Amino acid sequence: MKMKYIHELRMQVRDYECDLQGIVNNANYQHYTEHARHMFLHEHGISFAGLHARGIDAVVARMALRFKTPLRPGDAFTARLALRREGVKYVFRQDLFRESDGCLVFSADVETCCLIGGRLGTCAELDALVDECAGEDE
Amino acid sequence: MKMKYIHELRMQVRDYECDLQGIVNNANYQHYTEHARHMFLHEHGISFAGLHARGIDAVVARMALRFKTPLRPGDAFTARLALRREGVKYVFRQDLFRESDGCLVFSADVETCCLIGGRLGTCAELDALVDECAGEDE
Amino acid sequence: MKMKYIHELRMQVRDYECDLQGIVNNANYQHYTEHARHMFLHEHGISFAGLHARGIDAVVARMALRFKTPLRPGDAFTARLALRREGVKYVFRQDLFRESDGCLVFSADVETCCLIGGRLGTCAELDALVDECAGEDE
Amino acid sequence: MKMKYIHELRMQVRDYECDLQGIVNNANYQHYTEHARHMFLHEHGISFAGLHARGIDAVVARMALRFKTPLRPGDAFTARLALRREGVKYVFRQDLFRESDGCLVFSADVETCCLIGGRLGTCAELDALVDECAGEDE
Repeated sequence: MKMKYIHELRMQVRDYECDLQGIVNNANYQHYTEHARHMFLHEHGISFAGLHARGIDAVVARMALRFKTPLRPGDAFTARLALRREGVKYVFRQDLFRESDGCLVFSADVETCCLIGGRLGTCAELDALVDECAGEDE
Repeated sequence: MKMKYIHELRMQVRDYECDLQGIVNNANYQHYTEHARHMFLHEHGISFAGLHARGIDAVVARMALRFKTPLRPGDAFTARLALRREGVKYVFRQDLFRESDGCLVFSADVETCCLIGGRLGTCAELDALVDECAGEDE
Repeated sequence: MKMKYIHELRMQVRDYECDLQGIVNNANYQHYTEHARHMFLHEHGISFAGLHARGIDAVVARMALRFKTPLRPGDAFTARLALRREGVKYVFRQDLFRESDGCLVFSADVETCCLIGGRLGTCAELDALVDECAGEDE
Repeated sequence: MKMKYIHELRMQVRDYECDLQGIVNNANYQHYTEHARHMFLHEHGISFAGLHARGIDAVVARMALRFKTPLRPGDAFTARLALRREGVKYVFRQDLFRESDGCLVFSADVETCCLIGGRLGTCAELDALVDECAGEDE
């Protein structure tokens, strides 16, 4: 069963995000995916502050990043997101696609976990979103 | 009577701070001066958290920035700082000098004010530092 | 005669642009205005690369920044821009307004000048845009 | 045979690198390691510009990032670096340690490859540095 994307966000490269080589600096892809992830959670009514108030702290433990095609000044792109669970880990798959040709720019697996009173645990809201992702991709 | 610098901090340009034009992006000079200002205050035992706990909020109201000579990858530079009072405003003068030739890179006047219970007020710790600056420059 | 805005760009605060104090870090307002300025020039067919190819280098010489009301996570805002000429200087007025209540967030005067073969000069494209701004604000 | 670190760089957290949660924003660890890697290469006389002039382009293809312990405002830390080769890939191991207690903060494997005339190839200078790393750790 294939995982399907359940969120997308259109963005555009800003000149200040590019470096000496004339392409987006690597660290900015992490910024793009953080922003897309937070917007996704926000749109589903999940806030770090809200979870924290209930004793749940969601933290990023690991990231696997693949740099495929560099973005350049002015490029528009779309950030797509899927979510799966692996044991106690919630893994966000976040892929960036260049708008002009649909080319894959960057792909990340972001492993987060929930600390509940300092111990690894699960989170009902995230579990519900995982279920949404478990279907055929359109 | 000339104002004298009372703090200096040596820094070095990091490649990711440079943009498409091969020079430090303008916004990073603001980062450099913020860092130098916070280090200066920290070394004098003044923290925003500490002031806040006593009901004093120090905020930046205005900045006048002069861009003189761009820094390039690898350049070492020194941030120098002076402080004066103008009525209820505390004005930090922050100048950056390139190490290789002493050239002035960037010069800023950073106007801050203290809000005490929501009203403009003065701060004894900052007044003491202002007095230190009121002497002949070496 | 009042200057009128001739460009606007809607943006939204990204969480990573906020700092310890829970508000947008001061240097990011400079990023926002740089992005809006570059988009404005780009939409009018003016690129730094294009000017440079004709021997014209546009550089920022000074900025006067006024911090009015801090932006917070998730805030939407609009960057508005006007342009005037003062002698050989082209001055961009860039104001940011919070979308929820129209409140002025940040206001900047960005003085740029054109170096033509190393000497201060004027630029026909920018002059044309200055003329557009010289009218009553709606 | 254990890999040994062949470079270290001491740094300190700057307040503007911290986010809403009061800790260093995740993307800044990537900045720290990029800076350390570039300094390491620079100290060994290797520049991207120099390689490029000889037709060699070194690019980052993948990163595996592990976030262990968050850095906080003012924390001093040391970036340590080792280098190994895996086929045509040069893998930088970059670990950050908090100075106060030696605690591991962040660990990254940064896979780079060299494109020579558009094809994957090897680079004599990097091979020499790999040899330096192949020894017992002290």
